[in-house]
Amino acid sequence: MTSLTLALDAMGGDHGPHVTVPAALRALKLHPSLNIILVGDKAQIDIHLQSAEAVLLSRLEILHTTEVVKMCDRPVHALRSRKNSSMRLAIELVRDDKAQACVSAGNTGALMAMAKVLLKTLPGIDRPALVTCLPTVTRKPVYLLDLGANISCDSETLFQFAVMGSVLCEAVEKTSRPKVALLNIGREEIKGNDQVQQAGQLLQHTDRLNYTGFIEGDEIYSGNVDVIVCDGFVGNITLKTSEGIAKLLVDRLKQGLTQGFFVRFLAKIIAPRIQAVLSQMNPDHYNGASLIGLRGIVVKSHGNADATAYLQAISLAVTEAQRRLPEMIKDRLESILLDINS
Amino acid sequence: MTSLTLALDAMGGDHGPHVTVPAALRALKLHPSLNIILVGDKAQIDIHLQSAEAVLLSRLEILHTTEVVKMCDRPVHALRSRKNSSMRLAIELVRDDKAQACVSAGNTGALMAMAKVLLKTLPGIDRPALVTCLPTVTRKPVYLLDLGANISCDSETLFQFAVMGSVLCEAVEKTSRPKVALLNIGREEIKGNDQVQQAGQLLQHTDRLNYTGFIEGDEIYSGNVDVIVCDGFVGNITLKTSEGIAKLLVDRLKQGLTQGFFVRFLAKIIAPRIQAVLSQMNPDHYNGASLIGLRGIVVKSHGNADATAYLQAISLAVTEAQRRLPEMIKDRLESILLDINS
Repeated sequence: MTSLTLALDAMGGDHGPHVTVPAALRALKLHPSLNIILVGDKAQIDIHLQSAEAVLLSRLEILHTTEVVKMCDRPVHALRSRKNSSMRLAIELVRDDKAQACVSAGNTGALMAMAKVLLKTLPGIDRPALVTCLPTVTRKPVYLLDLGANISCDSETLFQFAVMGSVLCEAVEKTSRPKVALLNIGREEIKGNDQVQQAGQLLQHTDRLNYTGFIEGDEIYSGNVDVIVCDGFVGNITLKTSEGIAKLLVDRLKQGLTQGFFVRFLAKIIAPRIQAVLSQMNPDHYNGASLIGLRGIVVKSHGNADATAYLQAISLAVTEAQRRLPEMIKDRLESILLDINS
Repeated sequence: MTSLTLALDAMGGDHGPHVTVPAALRALKLHPSLNIILVGDKAQIDIHLQSAEAVLLSRLEILHTTEVVKMCDRPVHALRSRKNSSMRLAIELVRDDKAQACVSAGNTGALMAMAKVLLKTLPGIDRPALVTCLPTVTRKPVYLLDLGANISCDSETLFQFAVMGSVLCEAVEKTSRPKVALLNIGREEIKGNDQVQQAGQLLQHTDRLNYTGFIEGDEIYSGNVDVIVCDGFVGNITLKTSEGIAKLLVDRLKQGLTQGFFVRFLAKIIAPRIQAVLSQMNPDHYNGASLIGLRGIVVKSHGNADATAYLQAISLAVTEAQRRLPEMIKDRLESILLDINS
């Protein structure tokens, strides 16, 4: 690959440099043309670099700052007062073309606010969206957006999300003409609220997207579609509900397999297999939500990600930068809007 | 128990009398003071009564009609044109005090429309809500409403749902002062849309409900609260998403446990235990969504319920009738409204 530089908010997330620095070193090993700028407290970062290979360190730079965005900071406060924070400086490196993408595990609201103000949205995009991919029965991931960047959305915004999601899926998964659906409470045209119905009509009128209609909650994980669009309120609750029910199932399974000596004995033997299945389902394997629709690449990692999960987020940022995702979305949106208006 | 009469829409659901009649017979056996009126095509119903015990038949009555509400009927059409349908006649039996509750596995939209028009809402309730209970980690069920009867809801409606859900949980589970939460995209007061935020403020101002604040999707199944309130769009998608992810997990588990001879062999031995766990999680075990806020009791069964699942819905209707749920909700709501206005 051509040389790329990523900016990492080294202080963000529950574990800060303890996770971000080891993940950065692994990323440098994995991607030989990658350079990383770690933004944060040099003293804290250095602790985790002591035994690093010199060949990796040569592609690593530290931008020192002691200010951090706190998890409890309101977005507006973070935007106004955390001018030297590791999160903000990382985004500024993208804005100033010193990095092709940035990754943060910090405060989501602050990250979205700063990214929108500093990087600006692409022409034709009103609001950036937070998107992630989820596992499905067919093993082909599905992209779900918005996950909470936009609490309520009009039909035009949902339409733009559909375009962005489709381009993202095409870019990352190399799926040609990804199937796009709107999340609704029924498949029939009369179902749902005005925003969803009108977005459905807008989507039906463009051939440039492979719009397949409404989809219900029980089909999200079916693998029948590639991109699912909803507002941020519904998307956030959908994603978190999935985590909740998965936890419940695992819990019940554990209880069910520890009652009775013989079952417990057998269960122990096949436990690693069950563990393997569950870890495939672990959200960390799908870590990294992209904030798309901006003139730069911003990837949000789970706050409690470990180094392996954080590495996933870094790799996602690398892929998006390699494929020049913002430019792809911009071009596609332009052609679709031309198509609709002609 | 004192003598109770239930009206069953014998023709509703995917399987009609094939499921509803055997379930009715099992309900009569289970509840010795129960009487049932089966509403539907006598010839079709009779087929399933041929080997029934005479002692049960003495508490069973058939109200013959050949008209049915189709699954594809729009609610307005069903309301105007299906005047002699099994669904409508069953609800009319409740309206006319000939039955204390009715159960249908038919078209949900039509059932809600007919129930609202024929039974009317309770004083102080603007819109009925569809509610069901779900399993949790602590084994104490949680009540979730609304599940799709009301696509969008203002704060006042969400407040009324909280009251109704709390009374239902108290009546059925005998939980004293059930913990009530609003489903939102964060726990902080600033999170969410206007409706949820304002509903939170309304709920904070009454001591008559045990309101505990906002809850996120990943806590639905935690057992931390007893009642969760949201609008019907979010509730429907939440419920169906849970079904979807549960299916995915089961699927992955099956695949994981059939790879390799030894694992397959062991997995076969403990398969019944896994099956037992999964069947506890089966939505059929929690079959029966109540349409509450009406001057009568209406329980909706899954369309594809089998006799065991349909029996659950009947038993739920029996419990609600025994506890005189509509009167309880009415009284509680009156006292809460007095409290707020004083």
